[in-house]
Amino acid sequence: MAKKDLGVVPAVYPMPVLIVAAYDKDGKVNAMNAAWGMICDMDKIALFISEGHKTTKNILESKAFTVAIADKAHMDVADYFGIASGNNTPDKFERTGYTAVKSQHVNAPIIDEFPVTMECSLAEVVSTETMYCIVGKIANVVADEAVLSDNGKVDPAKLNALIFDQFQSGYYVTGDKVGQAWNAGKPLMQKK
Amino acid sequence: MAKKDLGVVPAVYPMPVLIVAAYDKDGKVNAMNAAWGMICDMDKIALFISEGHKTTKNILESKAFTVAIADKAHMDVADYFGIASGNNTPDKFERTGYTAVKSQHVNAPIIDEFPVTMECSLAEVVSTETMYCIVGKIANVVADEAVLSDNGKVDPAKLNALIFDQFQSGYYVTGDKVGQAWNAGKPLMQKK
Repeated sequence: MAKKDLGVVPAVYPMPVLIVAAYDKDGKVNAMNAAWGMICDMDKIALFISEGHKTTKNILESKAFTVAIADKAHMDVADYFGIASGNNTPDKFERTGYTAVKSQHVNAPIIDEFPVTMECSLAEVVSTETMYCIVGKIANVVADEAVLSDNGKVDPAKLNALIFDQFQSGYYVTGDKVGQAWNAGKPLMQKK
Repeated sequence: MAKKDLGVVPAVYPMPVLIVAAYDKDGKVNAMNAAWGMICDMDKIALFISEGHKTTKNILESKAFTVAIADKAHMDVADYFGIASGNNTPDKFERTGYTAVKSQHVNAPIIDEFPVTMECSLAEVVSTETMYCIVGKIANVVADEAVLSDNGKVDPAKLNALIFDQFQSGYYVTGDKVGQAWNAGKPLMQKK
């Protein structure tokens, strides 16, 4: 296959569209859009968000945050959360007209409109020579009943989550299911 | 919207299907499948892979690795890389019949079959009370010409990357493009 060098590019695909929300010291809600976040243990999430964000400051103060999965129906607000800054837009959250309710598990706001939300306590701030990272311990996940399948788990086909494409800054949604993990590779396991 | 508590669930969606490859001390290729990896800076990637993996050991020894994006055409091998272990399957890579060539930028193998590969030098091993993480500095990205759009960047519609669904262990592909980042939210920015 003919190959081409692209140079130094952040080439992970797909990336999620995560909405990170926290209270400031007065209990005011702020939220931001982050693609660079990933599960780092079965009960933990790592967010690579820089120190300058209003939400980062709020997390360091309140010791808690939520992380929601943005879906197609709320793309405009999810994207707005990535354009506007809470540092110079004090009413950033209020302008959306969205509703935030306090988590029953941690001191952080759940934005009602998003379909799946992780409720996290601040577990650690990791600051090394190569990374700055907020680690959250997941206390609970709350989901709209409408995105669950009969087995009680989230169904990606119902979730309609946004996918971020950092190559071209596009938003996509999920297409067809094409296989099952720990299954598609079984024939190769049995190959002599 | 009626909500339901799901308990402690690793609820990031979508997740990528990353193929991490490295040489052992004798120059033998091994590769593994990892969903928990994300860009952590414009030129860096963080992999949350545990110390026990053969590939982790190889990375610590060779100080380099590659990370490829798995696509639908190679789902069986990508999944096999997640089922078989290099610790007890010495010919794990050879069984696939795939071709590995040495990166021109780092001491690690590029698996020719996958469409996009990041070539990384080991930048840091971060081991704290809450996470274990391998950080790579991206020296170059190499891509099949067939997955590039006219602007020379990777086109998700051509890439056909696998998406991992940790809720139900499914593999999906990308569907429709639904918007553009830093654009979809502009109307809310202008709202009075």
